[in-house]
Amino acid sequence: MKNDRILLDHGSGGRASQQLVSDLILRYFTNTSLAQLEDSTEIYVDWYRLTFSTDSYVVDPIFFPGGNIGDLAINGTVNDIAMRGAIPKFLSVGFILEEGLLIADFEKILVSMAMAARKANVQVVTGDTKVVPRGAADKIFINTSGIGVLLDGRKISGHNALPGDSIIISGTIADHGVTVLTQREGLEFSGSFASDSQALNHLVEAMIAVCPDIHSLRDPTRGGLATTLNEIAEQSNVGIQLHEDAIPINQDVRAACELLGLDPLYLANEGKLVACVPAEHTKKVLAAMYNRPEGKHACVIGNVVADDPGKVWLVTAIGGSRLVDMLAGEPLPRIC
Amino acid sequence: MKNDRILLDHGSGGRASQQLVSDLILRYFTNTSLAQLEDSTEIYVDWYRLTFSTDSYVVDPIFFPGGNIGDLAINGTVNDIAMRGAIPKFLSVGFILEEGLLIADFEKILVSMAMAARKANVQVVTGDTKVVPRGAADKIFINTSGIGVLLDGRKISGHNALPGDSIIISGTIADHGVTVLTQREGLEFSGSFASDSQALNHLVEAMIAVCPDIHSLRDPTRGGLATTLNEIAEQSNVGIQLHEDAIPINQDVRAACELLGLDPLYLANEGKLVACVPAEHTKKVLAAMYNRPEGKHACVIGNVVADDPGKVWLVTAIGGSRLVDMLAGEPLPRIC
Repeated sequence: MKNDRILLDHGSGGRASQQLVSDLILRYFTNTSLAQLEDSTEIYVDWYRLTFSTDSYVVDPIFFPGGNIGDLAINGTVNDIAMRGAIPKFLSVGFILEEGLLIADFEKILVSMAMAARKANVQVVTGDTKVVPRGAADKIFINTSGIGVLLDGRKISGHNALPGDSIIISGTIADHGVTVLTQREGLEFSGSFASDSQALNHLVEAMIAVCPDIHSLRDPTRGGLATTLNEIAEQSNVGIQLHEDAIPINQDVRAACELLGLDPLYLANEGKLVACVPAEHTKKVLAAMYNRPEGKHACVIGNVVADDPGKVWLVTAIGGSRLVDMLAGEPLPRIC
Repeated sequence: MKNDRILLDHGSGGRASQQLVSDLILRYFTNTSLAQLEDSTEIYVDWYRLTFSTDSYVVDPIFFPGGNIGDLAINGTVNDIAMRGAIPKFLSVGFILEEGLLIADFEKILVSMAMAARKANVQVVTGDTKVVPRGAADKIFINTSGIGVLLDGRKISGHNALPGDSIIISGTIADHGVTVLTQREGLEFSGSFASDSQALNHLVEAMIAVCPDIHSLRDPTRGGLATTLNEIAEQSNVGIQLHEDAIPINQDVRAACELLGLDPLYLANEGKLVACVPAEHTKKVLAAMYNRPEGKHACVIGNVVADDPGKVWLVTAIGGSRLVDMLAGEPLPRIC
């Protein structure tokens, strides 16, 4: 480690996070499951294939247009499980509450969690609540862990992208990141946008139904689309070519990014997925996605190539091309 | 809810915690698994029986004699799974780190976690790390969730205690609570004590090997032995009689409690279990416990009775008896 203290960067989801995990944490926890570095881990109980995932949510503010920390915590862990092609079944919920939190706010969060769990068809089966004195935490942190069932034959992974694959995004990018940032800073924009927080497991099932051979699925959360695609490029040892023109961005989100000097490629999404799909199946996967509200703006944004393994290139609107690296700094702490 | 804000009491593990869960949280998450209110929940994946458990650790200070927040987080969740008679297999770990935490401290915690996981024979298979700005959390919080395998025929539960059962404790009480409190307050005592943080799953297996018909197992953590026995009395609808003289307490712990005006019955343990065992099997269970370091001070401290269901009575050293209620206030926030 280059530093002697934890920095905000270490929680960015980008390069520094990756280094903290690989240079420090993995030194002490060595097993093939953890070393996969997937959104959720495949485990075997006897011959039964399950996936197991965990995420803590520390978003600030806790309420924002389009959602709150509660539904975010349900949807985020549901999505991590779904990105392996597993069917999310059971969630645990761990609350860390700050003394003085309004019960009414906590109740609003619980209501959103219950609704999100119902929509995603998962059960919250076990929980824990801790309270810390005023000032020892900021309002509320939530951990959700989840168990999913992995049906026979499914082997979707960030390690499985192949040259020739189409890269599909399920909708517009950067909505969540821009929404949380502008809320936190109290910025007023004439445009309107909201977090895209939503569960993607039903969308994934619809995609797998028409194409059991999807290679990779990831939800581009912390670190944004750029970081997620870099992870796939590294894990699968392939190159990725993106077409800037093809990447869907809400007009108002784009305007806000320009004003704030932020690159939407690095902003978090909480209800979007990226899929690497064999080219010959692209059309039917897109057709299946259009049939669901979570996928109605799905489109192809690039393709997997054999050249430049581990790298992501963006072909710009004016025809040039530039290397898109993993997120390096931390523009947005506590985004999720 | 009587209050409009979250109080420290709500995290005590005692009466107020129970009310927060039953009056607020369970209103929104209704399913038979969660409503069991056990340390870990039984879930079915097809016909496969698993247990699932979660706990967040917020102990202050993060280092204390006998352990730190890291091994506590491993042992605590291992124990919650073991208390159902399940075999703990897989853990997730979610870190919430405060910006500025010393990497050296984080590494010490990781080392302890790895050692604790090895001792308990569990694998950390998935994880998550969030960083929040300085002041938004206190150094480090850890969530661990765990999956255990429940062998056929095992049905140990806080609901299954029966009149006639012996109540066994695996060793001295209040060690963890007194250690953390005196450390935090910077109190100097001439005596010596340390946290009892340890995994109990191997002890549980040794007990089940000689007595498959153990009725209830619980680890008396937050809220202490008094609160745990009240939970068993309520859930099993039985009375409990304790013998004050029989409850093992380290001399120095007892002296510290007297000086500080604390009742050891309400102080947390992090490496002890309480068992309700059919009277005829008591001797062989104790013999099996003596054979393991975690159980070498095991003893019978009382018995389950049919009278006064839901109540716990303590027969005092001088022959009187007093009602021992669940923890009502919060003498010790952030004990685990």
